[in-house]
Amino acid sequence: MIKTDILIIGAGPTGLFTVFEAGLLKLKCHLIDALPQPGGQCSEIYPKKPIYDIPAYPEILAGDLVDRLMEQIKPFEPGFTLGERADALEKQDDGSFIVTTNKGTKHHASVVVIAGGLGSFEPRKPLISNISDFEDKGVAYMIKDPEVYRNKKVVIAGGGDSALDWAIYLADVASEVSLVHRRNEFRGALDSVEKASELAKLGKIQLFTEAEVKELHGENELKAVVLKHNDETKEPTYVETDNFIPLFGLSPKLGPIGNWGLEIEKNAIKVNNAKDYQTNIPGVFAIGDVNTYPGKLKLILSGFHEAAVMCQFAYQIINPDKRFVMKYTTVGGIQGFDGSKREAKKEVVQSIA
Amino acid sequence: MIKTDILIIGAGPTGLFTVFEAGLLKLKCHLIDALPQPGGQCSEIYPKKPIYDIPAYPEILAGDLVDRLMEQIKPFEPGFTLGERADALEKQDDGSFIVTTNKGTKHHASVVVIAGGLGSFEPRKPLISNISDFEDKGVAYMIKDPEVYRNKKVVIAGGGDSALDWAIYLADVASEVSLVHRRNEFRGALDSVEKASELAKLGKIQLFTEAEVKELHGENELKAVVLKHNDETKEPTYVETDNFIPLFGLSPKLGPIGNWGLEIEKNAIKVNNAKDYQTNIPGVFAIGDVNTYPGKLKLILSGFHEAAVMCQFAYQIINPDKRFVMKYTTVGGIQGFDGSKREAKKEVVQSIA
Repeated sequence: MIKTDILIIGAGPTGLFTVFEAGLLKLKCHLIDALPQPGGQCSEIYPKKPIYDIPAYPEILAGDLVDRLMEQIKPFEPGFTLGERADALEKQDDGSFIVTTNKGTKHHASVVVIAGGLGSFEPRKPLISNISDFEDKGVAYMIKDPEVYRNKKVVIAGGGDSALDWAIYLADVASEVSLVHRRNEFRGALDSVEKASELAKLGKIQLFTEAEVKELHGENELKAVVLKHNDETKEPTYVETDNFIPLFGLSPKLGPIGNWGLEIEKNAIKVNNAKDYQTNIPGVFAIGDVNTYPGKLKLILSGFHEAAVMCQFAYQIINPDKRFVMKYTTVGGIQGFDGSKREAKKEVVQSIA
Repeated sequence: MIKTDILIIGAGPTGLFTVFEAGLLKLKCHLIDALPQPGGQCSEIYPKKPIYDIPAYPEILAGDLVDRLMEQIKPFEPGFTLGERADALEKQDDGSFIVTTNKGTKHHASVVVIAGGLGSFEPRKPLISNISDFEDKGVAYMIKDPEVYRNKKVVIAGGGDSALDWAIYLADVASEVSLVHRRNEFRGALDSVEKASELAKLGKIQLFTEAEVKELHGENELKAVVLKHNDETKEPTYVETDNFIPLFGLSPKLGPIGNWGLEIEKNAIKVNNAKDYQTNIPGVFAIGDVNTYPGKLKLILSGFHEAAVMCQFAYQIINPDKRFVMKYTTVGGIQGFDGSKREAKKEVVQSIA
């Protein structure tokens, strides 16, 4: 059982910044995210895209935003349960909560904060009848650790940036990389398309366009895939492989959170924006893109504000008898849980001459 | 008469960021501030102090925060009325407003946003009976343009960073600099105290400690000041000078805004935080540290959020018949009023080989 003060569901920018605001109040946080790394969409979907509306950043790449937030929260030592989806919420008699993931990991916390963005990102799966038989036995929809593929044969399917970028990356890691796409044209960053093209010419990527993986073969483990060509006069191609990785994008789903008894409106969780961003379940808050209220803007900067406000009320729940006096960081500095300290240079009082 | 869509009173971080959010909605902004430069307290009081709680900035100097915000809003060409205090608000028959400053500058706008922080910063003045006779005739409480003092004689009074820093700066500009402080000890950054000490030893700053300026002499213009020493056995010192600049700090005052008919609570303006941060006067909003509502946190990041929300409602007031569809900056980029454009690199669609 993982124990923490505030359990944050969703490790996107809003969830990450919550760790900082909680840390200022000396509250410890743990985050759960279905994706294999922190950052939410910013890391998974568009790490190389610039964002222009983060205050005081005229331009910042989404991936860099996540890196800066991770650096900012480091002193407050957040815990992470990654690659798992929060499935069940159980309220305990003492008002605390146990949250269990799809892999059975249990978390105990006084306060639960849903910072789930558009929901948990679930991969779009190709329609192959026996694909579920091979999941975790050669078939994966996301690459968590590329080292798993070292000296293995890999077939990647897809025509976007993910498929291109991983095919390029694995060309140097795997023993054989095939890239399968049902069209002739790829859609991605110019340099990715050019690099993939170069590797295809060098034979480091085997390219199959206007083709789709239609069959999976193997006993307990994947052994081969069969490609069918758009041109039906062509014979299907049999490709021996250890791994098949369809990268057809992720689609966000509110998922099991939708069954927790929360008031839902237009696929978002209703909260009290006049006060504390709490949901209809006392002790459960919702912040960032996942919540809704009159005038809600789905902006990262709004998630930051909601996190700061929400943490003050979480403090009251966790410490009903204490009163927290807010100190400006410019005055009081930052004391990390790891013993680190940041503070403004002290003034000196001394005579001249 | 200066005309604009949104008139912002207060050019601190919240006021500045409002220009950006308004700009995304194609609304033009003009800012009024009593201080001689944008940035509010961050520029005037603690430009060299680090702030630790700006999201995605583990540490940023207050002055740098202002610089980054100024860079971010540049494409939206804000206008500025600086060194003037907003004194009068008059509602027009058509629902628009005219705001007049203490120097008589008039501004016409559809929407007024008070982003006034703790209020307008008024200098603390020394108790010298005839000091007001010499204001703008040798006496100043703030240094707007140091070049005014080139080859002049200057007496600075005060024992903090402002007094130290300006004495150091003017040592190279003025023909003669005297620094008067009623104690022996100065309170400031270590390097400022050391630098002032060094200049005093070189005779580039004349130092008078344990002394206060008690009399001002001159006809139409200041000609000399008289210092009285704490040690009353010492004769008062007569110092010829062109300028006397007491730098005893600034104290924030809500000031004339307090008489505009706004609902005030604990020196702050009440707003509707459940919706749009509007005050009791329709068309007048209040955001940032100047406002109050249940759970209000006086954080810069909250001002940013309030600015974003408020601009959406200002848009509805200014364009009652249009509907604005928000586009993410990552998708739609930024189109400046100056013709500039920032946008993400477009994806390419092309075949490999």
